[in-house]
Amino acid sequence: MSTPTTGQVRLSLDAMGGDHGPSVVIPGAALALERHPDIQFLLYGDSTAIEAELARFPALKAKAEVRHTDVSITMEEKPSQALRRGRFKSSMWQSIDAVKKDEAHAAVSAGNTGALMAMSRFCLRMMQGIDRPALACLWPTARGESIVLDVGASIGAEAENLVDMAIMGSAMARIVFDIERPSVGLLNVGVEEVKGVEQVKEAARILREANLPNLSYHGFIEGDDIGRGTTDVVVIEGFAGNIMLKTAEGTAKQIADYLKAAIGRSFWAKIGYLFARGAFAALKAKMDPRAVNGAVFLGLDGIVVKSHGGTDAMGYASAIEVAYDMVKYELLAKITKALADRGEWVLPGASTRMVEAMDNQPAGGAGEMTEGS
Amino acid sequence: MSTPTTGQVRLSLDAMGGDHGPSVVIPGAALALERHPDIQFLLYGDSTAIEAELARFPALKAKAEVRHTDVSITMEEKPSQALRRGRFKSSMWQSIDAVKKDEAHAAVSAGNTGALMAMSRFCLRMMQGIDRPALACLWPTARGESIVLDVGASIGAEAENLVDMAIMGSAMARIVFDIERPSVGLLNVGVEEVKGVEQVKEAARILREANLPNLSYHGFIEGDDIGRGTTDVVVIEGFAGNIMLKTAEGTAKQIADYLKAAIGRSFWAKIGYLFARGAFAALKAKMDPRAVNGAVFLGLDGIVVKSHGGTDAMGYASAIEVAYDMVKYELLAKITKALADRGEWVLPGASTRMVEAMDNQPAGGAGEMTEGS
Repeated sequence: MSTPTTGQVRLSLDAMGGDHGPSVVIPGAALALERHPDIQFLLYGDSTAIEAELARFPALKAKAEVRHTDVSITMEEKPSQALRRGRFKSSMWQSIDAVKKDEAHAAVSAGNTGALMAMSRFCLRMMQGIDRPALACLWPTARGESIVLDVGASIGAEAENLVDMAIMGSAMARIVFDIERPSVGLLNVGVEEVKGVEQVKEAARILREANLPNLSYHGFIEGDDIGRGTTDVVVIEGFAGNIMLKTAEGTAKQIADYLKAAIGRSFWAKIGYLFARGAFAALKAKMDPRAVNGAVFLGLDGIVVKSHGGTDAMGYASAIEVAYDMVKYELLAKITKALADRGEWVLPGASTRMVEAMDNQPAGGAGEMTEGS
Repeated sequence: MSTPTTGQVRLSLDAMGGDHGPSVVIPGAALALERHPDIQFLLYGDSTAIEAELARFPALKAKAEVRHTDVSITMEEKPSQALRRGRFKSSMWQSIDAVKKDEAHAAVSAGNTGALMAMSRFCLRMMQGIDRPALACLWPTARGESIVLDVGASIGAEAENLVDMAIMGSAMARIVFDIERPSVGLLNVGVEEVKGVEQVKEAARILREANLPNLSYHGFIEGDDIGRGTTDVVVIEGFAGNIMLKTAEGTAKQIADYLKAAIGRSFWAKIGYLFARGAFAALKAKMDPRAVNGAVFLGLDGIVVKSHGGTDAMGYASAIEVAYDMVKYELLAKITKALADRGEWVLPGASTRMVEAMDNQPAGGAGEMTEGS
């Protein structure tokens, strides 16, 4: 990892986001502050509710500024509704806007993904040279973790978009895994170079020939390579990526349910469980989604981290720490530098085509948005 | 389930296919025959190796005819190589060709998927009115099983291809689940009608408006709906479907490995395991891929079932039973009837565009095949 920036890390939190609002966000922030005393918080939302929680955490209170908002975005709202109702005035918008205004280094929200992405794109716009955003998550693997993107910020990807994702994901991997040249795999239906859709094959060609300084292109990988941890970064177009992520989450839940049911069904199994409970605790910790909470919107001109909506304080603290690391180890500068290294592969027309195709977003994406920007 | 056809069910087996060849295929066939005495077998492959195994199963020997072939396709061969080396003369080709010649009602192979698909397409061609093949697998869910397609026969799908898959998958579901009107879900990145790629949205519109007699269109589903068993049939384009299947398999393996490691790590956990071993056996049975072995190539003018290459006799018997059911309950007739019900949605240009894009197959697909057909 490169030298971290010095000074306080200022994070803006959408305190009303997620299933539980301030009752999870504030304890989560307190937990993150214990681990990283150099964080300052801007807390956006209903000041009465926030202050009530803050009263329990004097250390956090001393490092936080509460900014009241009347509007909060619900988990059910479509991106278009959220923008209509919450632009400028919601806790979500204002926490992002604080990044735009340089009052915060990064924003964190557990609010609904589609609304958060729509607002982030409208407010922050895209980075120079990046065409569309990608959502990058941490995926637990047999080796530790990998970064998988895009898990649902955009639908479809040209070869250049996949190359951009490889570059942005590698920049994030350098920070998260503290390695100089993360390995990158392109998800495909086979490992042979002749297979797959044209865009993926073309992206493979570019990455192989470019031989970029901060990225080690591994080649094609298949779905089961993710869990094996074959590469540090896994790149896939957002439609398939979103479905794949949810399918894997569903499979993990299904197996956990089987296990619970199998153990609950017999007396001897329950006795066995008591003996083996240390092992089950280890398994549970290994599968704990809270430890890998915090997905990063990449490609935006600012850092926005999405927390799971249903997480608890510990999970929320993980998301805050992801934001903290991205600021401290300069994600945006790393991406900008990597894009410059890319040189000739910069798309001439790559600009902020933000409004286009916003009706067509995955995973709580920008939905039916049609009205003014 | 409709009335089964009467008379013997004749199945042709590629006895050399898979990691273990006749040593798994023959015991598997014997097991299937015990359960279904009305099966007759054509066994293709090295007659010495087959006869050696057959000697152990006199009941099977009495119902089987061995047909010697000199060539067998390896698990590593590319589809183009396999076709070049094995067309007409390999055990794989001849077992398929037996279906074409009406000597067998269905073929089963544990050989490599890409080669099997390429040979099946070349030998059997597509059904009237179907544009491209799909590979349908059984997926274990919280409710039992669902049929998921396409898990890797084709890349990309127009709306009409997705509709075809819904129809063919439903026909298979009527047989496997014995229900008259299976529910069908289209995988998407959200359940709202405004989301997703155009082809998926258009397919949804067609299925909703068509209101077909043997298919209950449920709507969009998300990745985690598969494990929940939200619908009987799950439809997705083959690139995403193949990656999604392998990702889920990888996740299941990863969790099983965690569990094993967690239990192996402590003395008390091992003691606990002894008490709970009934529960673990139940979990293992629930997760046993052998019980759901046997994926069906849909859209071909003939029935070909693909067994996992690494399966054992019990798993191979499952694949044989899938083939048996598809014959007995008339899969092809059901699909043909359902396509006729579809009426106006039959594509005017839908014909055997078999050779097109064969270079572009997922999951051990037709690979770099370019030469003669």
